[in-house]
Amino acid sequence: MTVVCTRLPQEMRPYLLRAGEGERYVFGRQVASVMASSQSTGGVFEMVVLSGGKGEEFPLHRHAKSYESVIVLEGKLEFLLNGTYHLLTAGDYVHIPPGTPHAYRMAGHRTKLASYTVPGSISAMYSILGTPYAPVEHPAKPVGAITAEQLEQASAAADIEFLAGPVLWGASSVVEGGVNPGAAAPYVLESGEGDRLLTADQLHSILASQKNTDGEYIFVSSIGPKGDPIVEHYHEHHTETFFCTKGEMTMWANGEEIRLQPGDFLHVPAGTLHSYRLNADYTQVVGLLVSGLFEPFFRTLGDPYEDHIFPSEPGPLRMDRVLSIIHELDLKVVAKSPLDRK
Amino acid sequence: MTVVCTRLPQEMRPYLLRAGEGERYVFGRQVASVMASSQSTGGVFEMVVLSGGKGEEFPLHRHAKSYESVIVLEGKLEFLLNGTYHLLTAGDYVHIPPGTPHAYRMAGHRTKLASYTVPGSISAMYSILGTPYAPVEHPAKPVGAITAEQLEQASAAADIEFLAGPVLWGASSVVEGGVNPGAAAPYVLESGEGDRLLTADQLHSILASQKNTDGEYIFVSSIGPKGDPIVEHYHEHHTETFFCTKGEMTMWANGEEIRLQPGDFLHVPAGTLHSYRLNADYTQVVGLLVSGLFEPFFRTLGDPYEDHIFPSEPGPLRMDRVLSIIHELDLKVVAKSPLDRK
Repeated sequence: MTVVCTRLPQEMRPYLLRAGEGERYVFGRQVASVMASSQSTGGVFEMVVLSGGKGEEFPLHRHAKSYESVIVLEGKLEFLLNGTYHLLTAGDYVHIPPGTPHAYRMAGHRTKLASYTVPGSISAMYSILGTPYAPVEHPAKPVGAITAEQLEQASAAADIEFLAGPVLWGASSVVEGGVNPGAAAPYVLESGEGDRLLTADQLHSILASQKNTDGEYIFVSSIGPKGDPIVEHYHEHHTETFFCTKGEMTMWANGEEIRLQPGDFLHVPAGTLHSYRLNADYTQVVGLLVSGLFEPFFRTLGDPYEDHIFPSEPGPLRMDRVLSIIHELDLKVVAKSPLDRK
Repeated sequence: MTVVCTRLPQEMRPYLLRAGEGERYVFGRQVASVMASSQSTGGVFEMVVLSGGKGEEFPLHRHAKSYESVIVLEGKLEFLLNGTYHLLTAGDYVHIPPGTPHAYRMAGHRTKLASYTVPGSISAMYSILGTPYAPVEHPAKPVGAITAEQLEQASAAADIEFLAGPVLWGASSVVEGGVNPGAAAPYVLESGEGDRLLTADQLHSILASQKNTDGEYIFVSSIGPKGDPIVEHYHEHHTETFFCTKGEMTMWANGEEIRLQPGDFLHVPAGTLHSYRLNADYTQVVGLLVSGLFEPFFRTLGDPYEDHIFPSEPGPLRMDRVLSIIHELDLKVVAKSPLDRK
C-alpha cells in the first residue's frame, strides 16, 4: 500500500496528503481541511488546516481534555487566548492547554492556520459545523453560517464546549518575542522564537516541550538549507508528523521517496522507516511528535543556539552523543542514509 | 541562448533567475540580491530582494527621479513613508514616488521584501554599501556595517540621497485596507487590496496604475487556481516581469518551457514571445510592467471585482473585448496556447 494518498485515510497508517487533499468542510467563508483525523492516526492526534477570508471568526470555546497547538501559515490572525488578544502573522505559534478559553478572527484577506489537537477527539466537529466542499480555496461569498443547533451538536460529539460572553475584536497586539514557560500554561511565540537547538546545519525550535504538554507531545519547527539526508530510522513508541511550510524536501517513508512542498503533510506512526533531506536553500518543516518522549533526542544531538537563522558555516553533528545513550532514546537507526539502500 | 540563467546577465535579454541566484551583497545581517539591474534590463527598471534579521534597518533616504514599488514577501517590516510609520506583513505593498523620504526596519526574525525601481539607476549602490556574499540566506551574525563614507559614495553613484533626522521606530501601525489614489502620491495597500479585475478564473490587483506612476509603469498582483495556458503573445513596446510568490506556474519564453516557484523571476523584454499557466491550487505572481501602456488591456479583459479571492466558478474570459480593440493595445497574439505549437 503506497504512502501517497489523495484522500484522508479512514484507518491508521503512514500516509502523505498533499496541500488541498484533506477532507474539506465549508462554513461562511472558511474552509476546514482535515489532514489527520482520529481515524487516520489511531486516536493519537488530529491536524486541520483552516483558511478563510478577512473577518471570519470561530466562536469562543474550550476543550476539556485536549491540548491544541496552532501555527499561522499565512495572513493575519486575531487570537483571543485566555482573555488576552494577540495579532498573529505567519509562523507565530499559540499553545492552548485543556480548559483555556480561546477564539479567533481572521484579519488578513486570505488567512490560513494549522491546528493540531491531542488526543484525537475534536476534528469530528467540522462535519457538523460545515458542509462537504469540493473547491480547495475558501469561497469568495459565504456558504452557510454556523447555527446554535450545530454548536450544540458539535459539543455533544467532540471535546469542545462553546462559551457565552463578549469577544471584543480589534484590540489585538502584534505578537513579539515570547518564551515557552516551564508549565502547561497558555502562551504565544513569535515566528522564529522557541527553545532553539542547532544540529549541524539545521535549526530546531521547540515550540512546545513536554513541560508545556504534561508529556503528551512536543511541537518542533525545523529550518535548514539544502543538505544531505539524515539517517534512516524508525521509532517503536511515538508518532511523528512532517508538515512542510516553506521550500522543498525529499522524504523517504517505508522505502518510498516523496517530495514535500508547502502544505504537504506526512503521517509517520511508530514503526515507519523514515528519513528526510532538505532540497531548497531555506526549508521549514513543522511537526507534532506524540507522545513527547523524543524530546531528549533533540537536546542530546542539538547545541543551544541564540540566533534565529542557521549559521552560514554548519556546526558539528554530534551523533556520537546520540549513539552513547541510544538505548534511552526511542530511536532505531537502520541505515546511514536512505540513499545507501538503493 | 537559453532563457534560464544561474547568474544575473550583464546585458539586456530575456532571462530567468531562480530564487537565490541574484547578485548578492551583505551589510550587517541583511542581504541584497539583485535580480534585475540596469545592465540586465537596458536601464528600464531594477529589482532587488532584500532579506535580513530582526532589527536590521535601511537609513532614511529619497530618490530624486526614481519610482520605487515594494512588496513584502515574508516576516514583518516597519516602513517609514513620508513621515508615517506602517507595519507591513507578507503581501503588503508600498508605493514611493520620486522625492518621498522613506526608511525601513525589519521587525520579524526573517524578513524579506522585493524592491522594484524605475528607471534603473539605483541598484548599483548595493555593491558600494555591501560586500559580495556567497550564501543565499542572511548571516546569523552581522557582516560589516554601512559607513558614512559608503553612504556618500552610494549617493554619488546612484539616484539616492540619504537624509538626516531622527527615525523613531516602534510607532508603526499594522497596514489595514488602502486604496490607490488618483495621483503619483505615496501610499500603502494591505495584501489583497488594490484595484481588482477578474479575468475568468484569475484575479488581478492593480497595485500601481499609470496615474500612480505618471505613466512610467504599472504594478500588478495576480492570483488564480490551477488552470490552462493563456494565449502565446509578445509586446512590441513594453517589458514585463513575472515574480512567482506562491504556488507554482509554468512559463514559456521564446519557446522554452520553464517552471516557476516562489522566488523565481522571469524578465520578459519587448519582443519576447511568452505565455503562462498556473499549476497549483493557489498561485500568486507579481509583476512590474514598464512603461505603463498595457493598463488598458487589464481593464478591457477584466471585470471589476469586489471580493478578494477568485470565485469558485470562473467568470467569462472576454477575449472578444480585447480583440475588438487589439490595434490599440501593445499585444501581438501568436498562438491560442503554447501547447498548440508543440
